[in-house]
Amino acid sequence: MIEKKLQDEIIEKNRNFTKGYRDDAPAYEEDFESDQQLQKPQPPLVKAAMRGEGDRVKLPFDFDKLDIKNDTVALFRDRHSSRVYTGESMNLLRLSFLLWATQGIKDIRGKSYATLRTVASGGARHPFETYLIVSNVEGLAPGRYHYLPMEHAVEFLGAVDNENAVAESLCFQNWALKANVIFYWSMVAYRAEWRYGIFAHRTALMDAGHVGENLYLAAEAAGLGCCGIAAFHHESCCRLFELDGNEEYIVYTMPVGTISEKDKAEEKAFYKFVEDEGL
Amino acid sequence: MIEKKLQDEIIEKNRNFTKGYRDDAPAYEEDFESDQQLQKPQPPLVKAAMRGEGDRVKLPFDFDKLDIKNDTVALFRDRHSSRVYTGESMNLLRLSFLLWATQGIKDIRGKSYATLRTVASGGARHPFETYLIVSNVEGLAPGRYHYLPMEHAVEFLGAVDNENAVAESLCFQNWALKANVIFYWSMVAYRAEWRYGIFAHRTALMDAGHVGENLYLAAEAAGLGCCGIAAFHHESCCRLFELDGNEEYIVYTMPVGTISEKDKAEEKAFYKFVEDEGL
Repeated sequence: MIEKKLQDEIIEKNRNFTKGYRDDAPAYEEDFESDQQLQKPQPPLVKAAMRGEGDRVKLPFDFDKLDIKNDTVALFRDRHSSRVYTGESMNLLRLSFLLWATQGIKDIRGKSYATLRTVASGGARHPFETYLIVSNVEGLAPGRYHYLPMEHAVEFLGAVDNENAVAESLCFQNWALKANVIFYWSMVAYRAEWRYGIFAHRTALMDAGHVGENLYLAAEAAGLGCCGIAAFHHESCCRLFELDGNEEYIVYTMPVGTISEKDKAEEKAFYKFVEDEGL
Repeated sequence: MIEKKLQDEIIEKNRNFTKGYRDDAPAYEEDFESDQQLQKPQPPLVKAAMRGEGDRVKLPFDFDKLDIKNDTVALFRDRHSSRVYTGESMNLLRLSFLLWATQGIKDIRGKSYATLRTVASGGARHPFETYLIVSNVEGLAPGRYHYLPMEHAVEFLGAVDNENAVAESLCFQNWALKANVIFYWSMVAYRAEWRYGIFAHRTALMDAGHVGENLYLAAEAAGLGCCGIAAFHHESCCRLFELDGNEEYIVYTMPVGTISEKDKAEEKAFYKFVEDEGL
Protein backbone atom coordinates (compact mmCIF):
# COMPACT_ATOMS: atom_id res chain seq x y z
CA MET A 1 0.00 0.00 0.00
CA ILE A 2 1.19 3.49 -0.82
CA GLU A 3 2.22 5.65 2.13
CA LYS A 4 -0.14 8.51 2.90
CA LYS A 5 2.66 11.09 2.69
CA LEU A 6 3.83 9.91 -0.73
CA GLN A 7 0.26 9.79 -2.02
CA ASP A 8 -0.36 13.35 -0.85
CA GLU A 9 2.84 14.51 -2.56
CA ILE A 10 1.87 12.88 -5.86
CA ILE A 11 -1.65 14.30 -5.72
CA GLU A 12 -0.26 17.79 -5.05
CA LYS A 13 2.28 17.54 -7.88
CA ASN A 14 -0.37 16.22 -10.29
CA ARG A 15 -2.93 18.85 -9.33
CA ASN A 16 -0.29 21.51 -9.90
CA PHE A 17 0.33 20.09 -13.38
CA THR A 18 -3.31 20.74 -14.26
CA LYS A 19 -3.37 24.38 -13.05
CA GLY A 20 -2.90 27.64 -14.98
CA TYR A 21 0.00 30.08 -14.59
CA ARG A 22 0.76 30.50 -10.89
CA ASP A 23 2.33 33.29 -8.86
CA ASP A 24 4.67 30.80 -7.18
CA ALA A 25 5.98 29.39 -10.49
CA PRO A 26 9.77 29.09 -10.73
CA ALA A 27 11.55 32.10 -12.24
CA TYR A 28 12.56 30.22 -15.39
CA GLU A 29 8.89 30.02 -16.43
CA GLU A 30 8.62 33.80 -16.62
CA ASP A 31 11.34 34.29 -19.23
CA PHE A 32 10.97 30.95 -21.01
CA GLU A 33 11.37 31.13 -24.79
CA SER A 34 10.11 28.28 -26.94
CA ASP A 35 11.89 26.98 -30.03
CA GLN A 36 9.35 28.91 -32.12
CA GLN A 37 10.34 32.12 -30.32
CA LEU A 38 14.00 31.22 -30.87
CA GLN A 39 13.14 30.85 -34.60
CA LYS A 40 14.18 27.22 -34.80
CA PRO A 41 12.67 25.34 -37.78
CA GLN A 42 9.30 23.81 -37.06
CA PRO A 43 8.69 20.07 -37.25
CA PRO A 44 6.48 18.57 -40.01
CA LEU A 45 2.74 19.14 -39.66
CA VAL A 46 2.04 15.42 -40.10
CA LYS A 47 4.09 12.26 -39.85
CA ALA A 48 5.30 10.89 -43.19
CA ALA A 49 3.82 7.65 -44.46
CA MET A 50 5.52 4.75 -42.69
CA ARG A 51 5.35 2.38 -45.69
CA GLY A 52 5.97 4.74 -48.61
CA GLU A 53 3.41 4.69 -51.41
CA GLY A 54 2.41 1.04 -51.13
CA ASP A 55 -0.55 -0.50 -49.35
CA ARG A 56 -2.52 2.72 -49.20
CA VAL A 57 -6.32 2.89 -49.26
CA LYS A 58 -7.83 6.21 -50.30
CA LEU A 59 -10.92 6.96 -48.20
CA PRO A 60 -14.27 7.96 -49.72
CA PHE A 61 -15.40 11.55 -49.16
CA ASP A 62 -19.06 11.38 -50.26
CA PHE A 63 -20.48 12.05 -46.81
CA ASP A 64 -23.80 13.07 -48.40
CA LYS A 65 -24.35 9.32 -48.91
CA LEU A 66 -23.97 8.66 -45.18
CA ASP A 67 -27.03 7.68 -43.21
CA ILE A 68 -26.39 10.21 -40.49
CA LYS A 69 -28.27 11.93 -37.67
CA ASN A 70 -28.66 15.64 -38.44
CA ASP A 71 -30.19 16.84 -35.19
CA THR A 72 -27.72 18.75 -33.05
CA VAL A 73 -29.67 18.73 -29.80
CA ALA A 74 -30.23 14.97 -30.16
CA LEU A 75 -26.52 14.49 -30.85
CA PHE A 76 -25.53 15.90 -27.45
CA ARG A 77 -28.54 14.31 -25.73
CA ASP A 78 -27.94 10.79 -27.07
CA ARG A 79 -24.12 10.61 -26.90
CA HIS A 80 -23.06 7.84 -24.54
CA SER A 81 -20.49 5.09 -24.05
CA SER A 82 -21.08 1.65 -25.60
CA ARG A 83 -19.06 -1.42 -24.70
CA VAL A 84 -21.13 -4.09 -26.44
CA TYR A 85 -20.78 -4.46 -30.22
CA THR A 86 -22.82 -6.67 -32.54
CA GLY A 87 -20.03 -7.95 -34.79
CA GLU A 88 -21.79 -6.73 -37.95
CA SER A 89 -19.56 -5.16 -40.54
CA MET A 90 -19.04 -1.40 -40.88
CA ASN A 91 -18.65 0.20 -44.30
CA LEU A 92 -15.60 2.22 -45.29
CA LEU A 93 -17.56 5.47 -45.67
CA ARG A 94 -18.48 5.42 -41.99
CA LEU A 95 -14.86 4.86 -40.96
CA SER A 96 -13.83 7.62 -43.37
CA PHE A 97 -16.29 10.00 -41.68
CA LEU A 98 -14.98 9.14 -38.20
CA LEU A 99 -11.37 9.78 -39.25
CA TRP A 100 -12.30 13.04 -40.95
CA ALA A 101 -14.43 14.25 -38.02
CA THR A 102 -11.59 13.64 -35.56
CA GLN A 103 -8.42 14.63 -37.44
CA GLY A 104 -9.48 15.65 -40.98
CA ILE A 105 -7.57 18.59 -42.50
CA LYS A 106 -9.64 21.45 -43.91
CA ASP A 107 -6.92 23.92 -44.84
CA ILE A 108 -3.28 24.91 -44.35
CA ARG A 109 -2.36 28.21 -42.69
CA GLY A 110 0.63 29.97 -44.29
CA LYS A 111 3.04 27.94 -46.43
CA SER A 112 3.20 25.17 -43.87
CA TYR A 113 2.62 26.84 -40.52
CA ALA A 114 -0.44 24.93 -39.36
CA THR A 115 -3.15 22.51 -40.37
CA LEU A 116 -6.71 23.61 -39.74
CA ARG A 117 -8.73 20.58 -38.77
CA THR A 118 -12.24 19.50 -37.83
CA VAL A 119 -11.20 19.62 -34.17
CA ALA A 120 -9.80 22.31 -31.89
CA SER A 121 -6.11 22.29 -30.91
CA GLY A 122 -4.07 24.88 -28.98
CA GLY A 123 -2.15 27.05 -31.44
CA ALA A 124 -3.41 24.71 -34.21
CA ARG A 125 -0.48 22.40 -33.36
CA HIS A 126 -2.51 19.20 -33.74
CA PRO A 127 0.24 17.10 -32.17
CA PHE A 128 -1.46 13.77 -32.90
CA GLU A 129 -1.32 10.84 -35.29
CA THR A 130 -4.15 8.33 -35.64
CA TYR A 131 -3.58 4.57 -35.68
CA LEU A 132 -6.22 1.89 -36.10
CA ILE A 133 -6.67 -1.75 -35.30
CA VAL A 134 -9.20 -2.82 -37.92
CA SER A 135 -11.16 -6.03 -37.31
CA ASN A 136 -14.30 -5.70 -39.36
CA VAL A 137 -14.51 -2.88 -41.90
CA GLU A 138 -15.62 -3.51 -45.51
CA GLY A 139 -12.75 -2.95 -47.95
CA LEU A 140 -9.96 -3.13 -45.37
CA ALA A 141 -7.96 -6.24 -44.49
CA PRO A 142 -7.84 -6.78 -40.71
CA GLY A 143 -4.68 -5.38 -39.15
CA ARG A 144 -2.80 -2.29 -38.17
CA TYR A 145 -3.25 1.05 -39.97
CA HIS A 146 -1.91 4.61 -39.92
CA TYR A 147 -4.13 7.51 -41.01
CA LEU A 148 -2.66 9.98 -43.53
CA PRO A 149 -4.72 13.14 -43.01
CA MET A 150 -3.17 15.12 -45.90
CA GLU A 151 -4.35 12.47 -48.39
CA HIS A 152 -7.36 11.33 -46.34
CA ALA A 153 -6.11 7.77 -46.76
CA VAL A 154 -4.99 4.94 -44.49
CA GLU A 155 -1.82 2.92 -44.94
CA PHE A 156 -1.70 -0.75 -44.02
CA LEU A 157 1.10 -1.40 -41.55
CA GLY A 158 0.61 -5.15 -41.31
CA ALA A 159 -1.36 -7.86 -39.58
CA VAL A 160 -1.44 -8.23 -35.81
CA ASP A 161 1.11 -11.00 -35.33
CA ASN A 162 0.67 -11.73 -31.66
CA GLU A 163 -2.94 -12.57 -30.87
CA ASN A 164 -2.65 -11.06 -27.37
CA ALA A 165 -1.07 -7.82 -28.55
CA VAL A 166 -4.29 -5.80 -28.77
CA ALA A 167 -5.72 -7.06 -25.47
CA GLU A 168 -2.42 -6.32 -23.75
CA SER A 169 -2.33 -2.81 -25.22
CA LEU A 170 -5.72 -2.08 -23.60
CA CYS A 171 -4.81 -3.63 -20.24
CA PHE A 172 -6.98 -6.68 -21.04
CA GLN A 173 -10.27 -4.81 -21.29
CA ASN A 174 -11.43 -7.60 -23.55
CA TRP A 175 -14.86 -6.20 -24.39
CA ALA A 176 -13.01 -3.73 -26.63
CA LEU A 177 -11.70 -6.53 -28.86
CA LYS A 178 -15.17 -6.99 -30.37
CA ALA A 179 -15.12 -3.46 -31.82
CA ASN A 180 -15.00 -3.11 -35.61
CA VAL A 181 -12.11 -0.72 -35.27
CA ILE A 182 -10.05 0.65 -32.38
CA PHE A 183 -8.65 4.18 -32.57
CA TYR A 184 -5.27 4.86 -30.95
CA TRP A 185 -4.06 8.47 -30.95
CA SER A 186 -0.39 9.12 -30.51
CA MET A 187 1.17 12.36 -29.39
CA VAL A 188 4.13 13.63 -31.42
CA ALA A 189 5.36 15.69 -28.50
CA TYR A 190 7.74 18.09 -30.22
CA ARG A 191 4.98 19.30 -32.57
CA ALA A 192 3.42 21.02 -29.54
CA GLU A 193 6.70 21.68 -27.69
CA TRP A 194 8.15 23.64 -30.64
CA ARG A 195 5.55 26.33 -29.90
CA TYR A 196 4.83 25.88 -26.18
CA GLY A 197 8.01 24.27 -24.80
CA ILE A 198 7.71 23.28 -21.16
CA PHE A 199 4.06 24.46 -21.17
CA ALA A 200 2.97 22.16 -24.01
CA HIS A 201 1.75 19.10 -22.16
CA ARG A 202 -1.22 20.29 -20.15
CA THR A 203 -2.77 21.76 -23.28
CA ALA A 204 -1.90 18.72 -25.40
CA LEU A 205 -3.90 16.45 -23.08
CA MET A 206 -6.90 18.76 -23.37
CA ASP A 207 -6.42 18.67 -27.14
CA ALA A 208 -6.55 14.86 -27.01
CA GLY A 209 -9.88 15.28 -25.22
CA HIS A 210 -11.14 17.51 -28.03
CA VAL A 211 -10.38 14.70 -30.49
CA GLY A 212 -12.04 12.04 -28.36
CA GLU A 213 -15.23 14.05 -27.93
CA ASN A 214 -15.51 14.48 -31.69
CA LEU A 215 -15.30 10.71 -32.07
CA TYR A 216 -18.06 10.28 -29.48
CA LEU A 217 -20.31 12.69 -31.40
CA ALA A 218 -19.39 11.44 -34.88
CA ALA A 219 -20.02 7.83 -33.81
CA GLU A 220 -23.38 8.84 -32.34
CA ALA A 221 -24.29 10.63 -35.57
CA ALA A 222 -23.31 7.58 -37.63
CA GLY A 223 -25.29 5.18 -35.44
CA LEU A 224 -22.18 3.53 -33.98
CA GLY A 225 -21.08 2.92 -30.40
CA CYS A 226 -17.77 3.80 -28.77
CA CYS A 227 -16.08 4.13 -25.39
CA GLY A 228 -12.98 6.14 -24.54
CA ILE A 229 -10.19 4.21 -22.79
CA ALA A 230 -7.48 5.98 -20.82
CA ALA A 231 -6.18 2.78 -19.20
CA PHE A 232 -3.78 1.46 -21.84
CA HIS A 233 -0.31 -0.02 -21.62
CA HIS A 234 2.45 2.23 -22.88
CA GLU A 235 4.99 -0.29 -24.16
CA SER A 236 2.41 -2.60 -25.79
CA CYS A 237 0.83 0.32 -27.64
CA CYS A 238 4.27 1.44 -28.85
CA ARG A 239 5.08 -2.07 -30.10
CA LEU A 240 1.73 -2.33 -31.90
CA PHE A 241 2.36 0.80 -33.98
CA GLU A 242 6.18 0.90 -34.09
CA LEU A 243 6.49 4.05 -31.95
CA ASP A 244 9.65 4.98 -30.09
CA GLY A 245 7.71 5.75 -26.89
CA ASN A 246 9.36 9.10 -26.22
CA GLU A 247 9.07 11.34 -29.28
CA GLU A 248 5.80 9.62 -30.11
CA TYR A 249 3.54 7.50 -27.91
CA ILE A 250 -0.15 6.70 -27.47
CA VAL A 251 -2.20 9.11 -25.30
CA TYR A 252 -5.80 7.98 -25.85
CA THR A 253 -7.65 5.00 -27.31
CA MET A 254 -11.24 4.36 -28.33
CA PRO A 255 -12.96 1.25 -29.74
CA VAL A 256 -15.87 1.87 -32.14
CA GLY A 257 -18.39 -0.74 -33.21
CA THR A 258 -21.82 -1.52 -34.55
CA ILE A 259 -24.49 -1.59 -31.84
CA SER A 260 -28.02 -2.84 -31.35
CA GLU A 261 -30.93 -1.89 -29.07
CA LYS A 262 -31.24 -5.51 -27.98
CA ASP A 263 -27.79 -5.44 -26.35
CA LYS A 264 -28.89 -2.84 -23.80
CA ALA A 265 -29.22 -5.42 -21.02
CA GLU A 266 -25.67 -6.64 -21.59
CA GLU A 267 -24.52 -3.02 -21.67
CA LYS A 268 -26.14 -2.41 -18.28
CA ALA A 269 -24.17 -5.29 -16.77
CA PHE A 270 -21.06 -3.11 -16.85
CA TYR A 271 -22.68 -0.99 -14.12
CA LYS A 272 -24.08 -3.83 -12.02
CA PHE A 273 -21.61 -2.98 -9.22
CA VAL A 274 -23.50 0.29 -8.64
CA GLU A 275 -26.64 -1.64 -7.66
CA ASP A 276 -24.73 -4.42 -5.88
CA GLU A 277 -22.87 -1.96 -3.70
CA GLY A 278 -25.94 0.23 -3.11
CA LEU A 279 -24.14 3.30 -4.46
CA MET B 1 17.10 31.75 -20.00
CA ILE B 2 16.33 28.22 -18.82
CA GLU B 3 19.27 25.82 -18.78
CA LYS B 4 19.14 23.10 -21.41
CA LYS B 5 19.51 20.34 -18.83
CA LEU B 6 16.63 21.63 -16.70
CA GLN B 7 14.44 22.11 -19.75
CA ASP B 8 15.11 18.54 -20.90
CA GLU B 9 14.25 17.23 -17.43
CA ILE B 10 10.96 19.15 -17.35
CA ILE B 11 10.02 18.00 -20.84
CA GLU B 12 10.76 14.38 -19.92
CA LYS B 13 8.76 14.59 -16.70
CA ASN B 14 5.83 16.26 -18.48
CA ARG B 15 5.86 13.78 -21.35
CA ASN B 16 5.81 10.97 -18.82
CA PHE B 17 2.76 12.53 -17.19
CA THR B 18 0.87 12.21 -20.48
CA LYS B 19 1.73 8.53 -21.08
CA GLY B 20 -0.24 5.35 -20.30
CA TYR B 21 0.72 2.67 -17.77
CA ARG B 22 4.44 1.97 -18.07
CA ASP B 23 6.59 -1.06 -17.29
CA ASP B 24 9.01 1.14 -15.36
CA ALA B 25 6.32 2.64 -13.13
CA PRO B 26 7.13 2.66 -9.41
CA ALA B 27 5.92 -0.38 -7.46
CA TYR B 28 3.31 1.61 -5.51
CA GLU B 29 1.35 2.15 -8.73
CA GLU B 30 0.79 -1.56 -9.16
CA ASP B 31 -1.02 -2.11 -5.86
CA PHE B 32 -2.56 1.35 -5.52
CA GLU B 33 -6.09 1.36 -4.14
CA SER B 34 -8.27 4.41 -4.56
CA ASP B 35 -10.66 5.75 -1.95
CA GLN B 36 -13.49 4.15 -3.93
CA GLN B 37 -11.76 0.78 -3.66
CA LEU B 38 -11.23 1.42 0.05
CA GLN B 39 -15.01 2.08 0.26
CA LYS B 40 -14.65 5.63 1.55
CA PRO B 41 -17.77 7.79 1.04
CA GLN B 42 -17.85 9.52 -2.29
CA PRO B 43 -17.93 13.31 -2.61
CA PRO B 44 -21.06 15.13 -3.88
CA LEU B 45 -21.76 14.84 -7.62
CA VAL B 46 -22.07 18.61 -7.94
CA LYS B 47 -21.03 21.59 -5.84
CA ALA B 48 -23.81 23.03 -3.68
CA ALA B 49 -25.18 26.47 -4.57
CA MET B 50 -22.80 29.12 -3.25
CA ARG B 51 -25.55 31.67 -2.45
CA GLY B 52 -28.33 29.44 -1.19
CA GLU B 53 -31.74 29.84 -2.86
CA GLY B 54 -31.47 33.53 -3.72
CA ASP B 55 -30.41 35.20 -6.95
CA ARG B 56 -31.04 32.13 -9.05
CA VAL B 57 -32.15 32.27 -12.70
CA LYS B 58 -33.81 29.13 -14.06
CA LEU B 59 -32.67 28.53 -17.65
CA PRO B 60 -35.13 27.87 -20.49
CA PHE B 61 -35.18 24.37 -21.95
CA ASP B 62 -37.21 24.87 -25.14
CA PHE B 63 -34.34 24.13 -27.51
CA ASP B 64 -36.85 23.45 -30.30
CA LYS B 65 -37.20 27.26 -30.46
CA LEU B 66 -33.45 27.68 -31.09
CA ASP B 67 -32.32 28.77 -34.51
CA ILE B 68 -29.71 26.04 -34.79
CA LYS B 69 -27.63 24.32 -37.47
CA ASN B 70 -28.78 20.72 -37.86
CA ASP B 71 -26.16 19.44 -40.31
CA THR B 72 -23.61 17.21 -38.62
CA VAL B 73 -21.00 17.20 -41.39
CA ALA B 74 -21.20 21.02 -41.62
CA LEU B 75 -20.83 21.24 -37.83
CA PHE B 76 -17.43 19.55 -37.89
CA ARG B 77 -16.45 21.26 -41.16
CA ASP B 78 -17.29 24.80 -40.01
CA ARG B 79 -16.10 24.66 -36.38
CA HIS B 80 -13.32 27.20 -35.86
CA SER B 81 -11.94 29.71 -33.36
CA SER B 82 -13.33 33.27 -33.29
CA ARG B 83 -11.65 36.12 -31.40
CA VAL B 84 -13.70 39.05 -32.77
CA TYR B 85 -17.19 39.60 -31.37
CA THR B 86 -19.79 42.09 -32.55
CA GLY B 87 -21.10 43.29 -29.20
CA GLU B 88 -24.72 42.40 -30.10
CA SER B 89 -26.72 40.82 -27.33
CA MET B 90 -27.21 37.05 -26.95
CA ASN B 91 -30.50 35.63 -25.73
CA LEU B 92 -30.80 33.44 -22.65
CA LEU B 93 -31.94 30.38 -24.62
CA ARG B 94 -28.65 30.27 -26.51
CA LEU B 95 -26.63 30.49 -23.30
CA SER B 96 -28.87 27.82 -21.81
CA PHE B 97 -28.11 25.55 -24.76
CA LEU B 98 -24.34 26.09 -24.41
CA LEU B 99 -24.44 25.23 -20.71
CA TRP B 100 -26.56 22.16 -21.32
CA ALA B 101 -24.41 20.94 -24.24
CA THR B 102 -21.25 21.19 -22.15
CA GLN B 103 -22.28 20.06 -18.66
CA GLY B 104 -26.02 19.32 -18.77
CA ILE B 105 -27.22 16.37 -16.69
CA LYS B 106 -29.35 13.74 -18.45
CA ASP B 107 -29.70 11.14 -15.74
CA ILE B 108 -28.32 9.83 -12.45
CA ARG B 109 -26.75 6.36 -12.20
CA GLY B 110 -27.59 4.49 -9.01
CA LYS B 111 -28.85 6.41 -5.99
CA SER B 112 -26.15 9.02 -6.35
CA TYR B 113 -23.21 7.22 -7.94
CA ALA B 114 -22.77 9.30 -11.08
CA THR B 115 -24.28 11.99 -13.25
CA LEU B 116 -24.74 11.13 -16.93
CA ARG B 117 -24.11 14.25 -18.94
CA THR B 118 -24.07 15.54 -22.50
CA VAL B 119 -20.27 15.13 -22.53
CA ALA B 120 -17.91 12.20 -21.96
CA SER B 121 -15.99 11.88 -18.70
CA GLY B 122 -13.79 9.05 -17.41
CA GLY B 123 -15.79 6.86 -15.02
CA ALA B 124 -18.61 9.45 -15.33
CA ARG B 125 -16.83 11.46 -12.61
CA HIS B 126 -17.51 14.85 -14.28
CA PRO B 127 -15.08 16.62 -11.93
CA PHE B 128 -15.99 20.10 -13.17
CA GLU B 129 -18.01 23.16 -12.21
CA THR B 130 -18.91 25.90 -14.69
CA TYR B 131 -18.51 29.59 -13.91
CA LEU B 132 -19.42 32.50 -16.17
CA ILE B 133 -18.47 36.11 -16.59
CA VAL B 134 -21.59 37.53 -18.24
CA SER B 135 -21.30 40.83 -20.10
CA ASN B 136 -24.12 40.87 -22.57
CA VAL B 137 -26.85 38.23 -22.22
CA GLU B 138 -30.55 39.16 -22.26
CA GLY B 139 -32.16 38.51 -18.90
CA LEU B 140 -28.93 38.33 -16.89
CA ALA B 141 -27.30 41.20 -15.04
CA PRO B 142 -23.61 41.51 -15.93
CA GLY B 143 -21.35 39.77 -13.43
CA ARG B 144 -20.15 36.49 -12.06
CA TYR B 145 -22.26 33.32 -12.19
CA HIS B 146 -22.12 29.68 -11.14
CA TYR B 147 -23.99 27.01 -13.14
CA LEU B 148 -26.22 24.61 -11.18
CA PRO B 149 -26.51 21.58 -13.49
CA MET B 150 -29.03 19.67 -11.31
CA GLU B 151 -31.52 22.54 -11.60
CA HIS B 152 -30.28 23.79 -15.00
CA ALA B 153 -30.06 27.25 -13.47
CA VAL B 154 -27.37 29.85 -12.85
CA GLU B 155 -26.80 31.64 -9.58
CA PHE B 156 -25.57 35.23 -9.49
CA LEU B 157 -22.41 35.51 -7.44
CA GLY B 158 -22.01 39.26 -7.75
CA ALA B 159 -20.67 42.02 -9.97
CA VAL B 160 -17.04 42.17 -11.06
CA ASP B 161 -15.68 44.68 -8.57
CA ASN B 162 -12.21 45.24 -9.97
CA GLU B 163 -12.36 46.32 -13.61
CA ASN B 164 -9.05 44.59 -14.38
CA ALA B 165 -10.01 41.30 -12.73
CA VAL B 166 -11.25 39.56 -15.87
CA ALA B 167 -8.36 40.74 -18.09
CA GLU B 168 -5.89 39.64 -15.43
CA SER B 169 -7.54 36.22 -15.15
CA LEU B 170 -6.95 35.66 -18.89
CA CYS B 171 -3.36 36.94 -18.84
CA PHE B 172 -4.48 40.19 -20.53
CA GLN B 173 -5.77 38.60 -23.73
CA ASN B 174 -8.03 41.60 -24.05
CA TRP B 175 -9.87 40.54 -27.21
CA ALA B 176 -11.70 38.05 -24.95
CA LEU B 177 -13.28 40.88 -22.92
CA LYS B 178 -15.64 41.69 -25.80
CA ALA B 179 -17.28 38.27 -25.57
CA ASN B 180 -20.90 38.12 -24.43
CA VAL B 181 -19.98 35.49 -21.89
CA ILE B 182 -16.77 33.80 -20.79
CA PHE B 183 -16.86 30.19 -19.60
CA TYR B 184 -14.44 29.15 -16.83
CA TRP B 185 -14.40 25.47 -15.90
CA SER B 186 -13.03 24.51 -12.53
CA MET B 187 -11.80 21.09 -11.54
CA VAL B 188 -13.05 19.71 -8.22
CA ALA B 189 -10.08 17.42 -7.96
CA TYR B 190 -11.28 14.93 -5.35
CA ARG B 191 -14.36 14.09 -7.41
CA ALA B 192 -12.01 12.32 -9.84
CA GLU B 193 -9.39 11.30 -7.24
CA TRP B 194 -11.97 9.42 -5.16
CA ARG B 195 -12.19 6.88 -8.01
CA TYR B 196 -8.78 7.17 -9.68
CA GLY B 197 -6.47 8.46 -6.93
CA ILE B 198 -2.98 9.25 -8.17
CA PHE B 199 -4.06 8.36 -11.73
CA ALA B 200 -6.92 10.89 -11.86
CA HIS B 201 -5.23 13.93 -13.34
CA ARG B 202 -4.19 12.86 -16.84
CA THR B 203 -7.73 11.70 -17.55
CA ALA B 204 -9.29 14.78 -15.96
CA LEU B 205 -7.43 17.05 -18.38
CA MET B 206 -8.69 15.01 -21.32
CA ASP B 207 -12.18 15.29 -19.81
CA ALA B 208 -11.79 19.08 -19.75
CA GLY B 209 -10.99 18.83 -23.46
CA HIS B 210 -14.22 16.87 -24.02
CA VAL B 211 -16.15 19.74 -22.45
CA GLY B 212 -14.34 22.40 -24.48
CA GLU B 213 -14.95 20.62 -27.78
CA ASN B 214 -18.67 20.43 -27.04
CA LEU B 215 -18.68 24.19 -26.51
CA TYR B 216 -16.92 24.68 -29.85
CA LEU B 217 -19.55 22.58 -31.61
CA ALA B 218 -22.53 23.94 -29.70
CA ALA B 219 -21.41 27.53 -30.39
CA GLU B 220 -20.97 26.71 -34.08
CA ALA B 221 -24.46 25.18 -34.17
CA ALA B 222 -25.93 28.25 -32.48
CA GLY B 223 -24.18 30.66 -34.85
CA LEU B 224 -21.81 31.97 -32.15
CA GLY B 225 -18.01 32.28 -32.05
CA CYS B 226 -15.63 31.05 -29.37
CA CYS B 227 -11.97 30.40 -28.71
CA GLY B 228 -10.45 28.10 -26.09
CA ILE B 229 -7.88 29.70 -23.77
CA ALA B 230 -5.39 27.61 -21.82
CA ALA B 231 -3.24 30.60 -20.82
CA PHE B 232 -5.03 31.88 -17.72
CA HIS B 233 -3.78 33.08 -14.35
CA HIS B 234 -4.43 30.68 -11.49
CA GLU B 235 -4.75 33.09 -8.55
CA SER B 236 -6.84 35.67 -10.45
CA CYS B 237 -9.26 33.00 -11.63
CA CYS B 238 -9.58 31.70 -8.07
CA ARG B 239 -10.30 35.20 -6.73
CA LEU B 240 -12.91 35.81 -9.42
CA PHE B 241 -14.97 32.78 -8.44
CA GLU B 242 -14.06 32.38 -4.77
CA LEU B 243 -12.17 29.09 -5.23
CA ASP B 244 -9.60 27.82 -2.76
CA GLY B 245 -7.11 27.01 -5.55
CA ASN B 246 -6.30 23.53 -4.34
CA GLU B 247 -9.48 21.49 -3.89
CA GLU B 248 -11.04 23.50 -6.73
CA TYR B 249 -9.36 25.65 -9.37
CA ILE B 250 -9.85 26.71 -12.98
CA VAL B 251 -8.52 24.36 -15.70
CA TYR B 252 -9.95 25.80 -18.93
CA THR B 253 -11.60 29.00 -20.14
CA MET B 254 -13.50 29.98 -23.27
CA PRO B 255 -15.07 33.27 -24.34
CA VAL B 256 -18.21 33.03 -26.51
CA GLY B 257 -19.70 35.88 -28.49
CA THR B 258 -21.86 37.01 -31.37
CA ILE B 259 -19.97 37.13 -34.66
CA SER B 260 -20.35 38.62 -38.11
CA GLU B 261 -19.03 37.76 -41.58
CA LYS B 262 -17.77 41.31 -41.97
CA ASP B 263 -15.28 40.89 -39.12
CA LYS B 264 -13.32 38.25 -41.03
CA ALA B 265 -10.53 40.68 -41.95
CA GLU B 266 -10.04 41.64 -38.31
CA GLU B 267 -10.10 37.95 -37.40
CA LYS B 268 -7.33 37.26 -39.91
CA ALA B 269 -5.11 39.90 -38.27
CA PHE B 270 -4.53 37.47 -35.39
CA TYR B 271 -2.52 35.33 -37.83
CA LYS B 272 -0.63 38.13 -39.58
CA PHE B 273 2.65 36.93 -38.03
CA VAL B 274 2.44 33.79 -40.19
CA GLU B 275 2.69 35.90 -43.37
CA ASP B 276 5.13 38.40 -41.85
CA GLU B 277 7.51 35.67 -40.81
CA GLY B 278 7.09 33.70 -44.04
CA LEU B 279 6.01 30.59 -42.14
